[in-house]
Amino acid sequence: MIQKAAISSAVEKTRRCIFEKLDLQLSSDFGTFRIADFGCSIGPNTFHVAQSIIDTVKSKRLEESTENSLVPLEFQVFFNDQPTNDFNTLFRTQPLSPEREYFSVGVPGSFYGRVLPRNSIHIGHTSYTTHWLSKVPDNVCDKKSMAWNKNYIQCNNLLEEVTKAYKVQFIKDMEIFLDARAEELVPGGLMIVIGECLPDGVSLYETWQGYVMDTIGDCLMDMAKSGITSEEKIDLFSLPVYFPQFSELKGEIEKNGSFTIELMETTSHPLEGKPLTNDFITSTFRAFLTTIIEKHFGDGVVDELFYRLAKKLSNHPIDFEMRKKQVVYCIVLKRK
Amino acid sequence: MIQKAAISSAVEKTRRCIFEKLDLQLSSDFGTFRIADFGCSIGPNTFHVAQSIIDTVKSKRLEESTENSLVPLEFQVFFNDQPTNDFNTLFRTQPLSPEREYFSVGVPGSFYGRVLPRNSIHIGHTSYTTHWLSKVPDNVCDKKSMAWNKNYIQCNNLLEEVTKAYKVQFIKDMEIFLDARAEELVPGGLMIVIGECLPDGVSLYETWQGYVMDTIGDCLMDMAKSGITSEEKIDLFSLPVYFPQFSELKGEIEKNGSFTIELMETTSHPLEGKPLTNDFITSTFRAFLTTIIEKHFGDGVVDELFYRLAKKLSNHPIDFEMRKKQVVYCIVLKRK
Repeated sequence: MIQKAAISSAVEKTRRCIFEKLDLQLSSDFGTFRIADFGCSIGPNTFHVAQSIIDTVKSKRLEESTENSLVPLEFQVFFNDQPTNDFNTLFRTQPLSPEREYFSVGVPGSFYGRVLPRNSIHIGHTSYTTHWLSKVPDNVCDKKSMAWNKNYIQCNNLLEEVTKAYKVQFIKDMEIFLDARAEELVPGGLMIVIGECLPDGVSLYETWQGYVMDTIGDCLMDMAKSGITSEEKIDLFSLPVYFPQFSELKGEIEKNGSFTIELMETTSHPLEGKPLTNDFITSTFRAFLTTIIEKHFGDGVVDELFYRLAKKLSNHPIDFEMRKKQVVYCIVLKRK
Repeated sequence: MIQKAAISSAVEKTRRCIFEKLDLQLSSDFGTFRIADFGCSIGPNTFHVAQSIIDTVKSKRLEESTENSLVPLEFQVFFNDQPTNDFNTLFRTQPLSPEREYFSVGVPGSFYGRVLPRNSIHIGHTSYTTHWLSKVPDNVCDKKSMAWNKNYIQCNNLLEEVTKAYKVQFIKDMEIFLDARAEELVPGGLMIVIGECLPDGVSLYETWQGYVMDTIGDCLMDMAKSGITSEEKIDLFSLPVYFPQFSELKGEIEKNGSFTIELMETTSHPLEGKPLTNDFITSTFRAFLTTIIEKHFGDGVVDELFYRLAKKLSNHPIDFEMRKKQVVYCIVLKRK
């Protein structure tokens, strides 16, 4: 839900940016315009993204209707996600032609690595994916390590050593991500990245999102005390999720050097100002966490956990005025 | 099982043909060599096919190691099948890199129509797929039609009007198949087609395979008499399967005109001479038919049907010496 709203808000910005920055000559040699959505999940967001990019390319071609743009262009969209993604559902629920104006293709594999041939993609896209690291950072679940994240289930920036370990992993992953996309995109190709980050100087525990996650950790601890799960299990659990600060993210892109930054802005979260009910928050975090919680804690924990979360949130309502906020960023990169 | 054996037998021929006929210049502009397997199912055969084609291209490049072949080449394999195919299993069971030397991609869609962009494939492949028509021919299940296939569940060539209706559908489908592949392949690209057909002058009912299928029809009739299914259902059932005669298939390819025929031969069936036990035959036809039988006749028919088939075959063993045989064909086409 948050994801869809964020896309809608950022979509106008990226649309305009594609319209301004895309070089249509890119596709002239091939007759095929290739788009990739990295971390596409099962739809329908990814279908909207694909269609929106195609609409933009088409209207740019119409406006610049030179000889080149009159060559009929075919679109091919590469839907990428982990091999564990449900591609069957993706394929069976996609729009049908002629409404679907592209050849559709599924690409199984982690985007922390190459998944497509060199110089094969004209526009790449990813939204709400890169906060998922390729793995839980080393040492964070090691009781003997200085970076052991004992009391928390996320990197909330309260423990310096933990933050450092997460940051090391984030830098590695971001480098691999950018290197892979740099190879896959044609020179001049555009890469759109949308997601959430922290404003500069803000720690995750200060935001309401970070607070909710820490509260989920508290609920797990309560459940361990009631014997529904064990402290041991919680000690060994930490999410492979890292929200960088805005300038930290920017720094990594600049350091990588394969792309010029055509657009990098934060947009106010589209949910801002709307009433964030406890029900909404509970179901959003539940959707986000169910798989990973079940994998670590086993079946029969999730229902109880989110029941307890709802109860805690209703006993201690979040003061959104006092809490800081994550922001939505919207980046358009051009392959050098 | 038949399929795998047939592939192994034909694979040597096509390998040699690719080696001789492939123009390596094809791929020089792009740096990516694209292979497609149409009607790939869920593996592992399709993985062997892909690897075998890649091995052949590689050894040809090695042999002709001109400047061109020293440019590093990346392979991308497009696995195509209906959207109802289990792509999840395909993706989760594929070989892992570095053993898998290609970028792998799933393409959902019927190959009786375009599934890939123009000029995008260097070598296409399909095996044991084109006997499946896009649909049951018109009229064949219409009680009022001259082409009603009342007593049979397949086109066994005993009823002229039925054969004609199937042939019309076959010609339509083959034209669509060849037209689509002609657009998708680059000029000079190769299309490999492997499958079973009838020798010229042979009718399906004369072959042991046709006899087994007619026997399955008889078993269904017996079951209708016992009330396990109904005659009405059998009247409305006919397989969307057509085995052309060799020269009929050749004629359609020549008529289409988009390809030159580089190789078109029949090979003796690799199972020939080996003992075809009733168990083997029963399980082969069961694998081939289960989905379509269940779809039409509902659950709880298949077990009984193949139990009855096994019994009939053991009471009336097939005389393989007397029966005629389908043959395996092996075709390599070059896009003009």
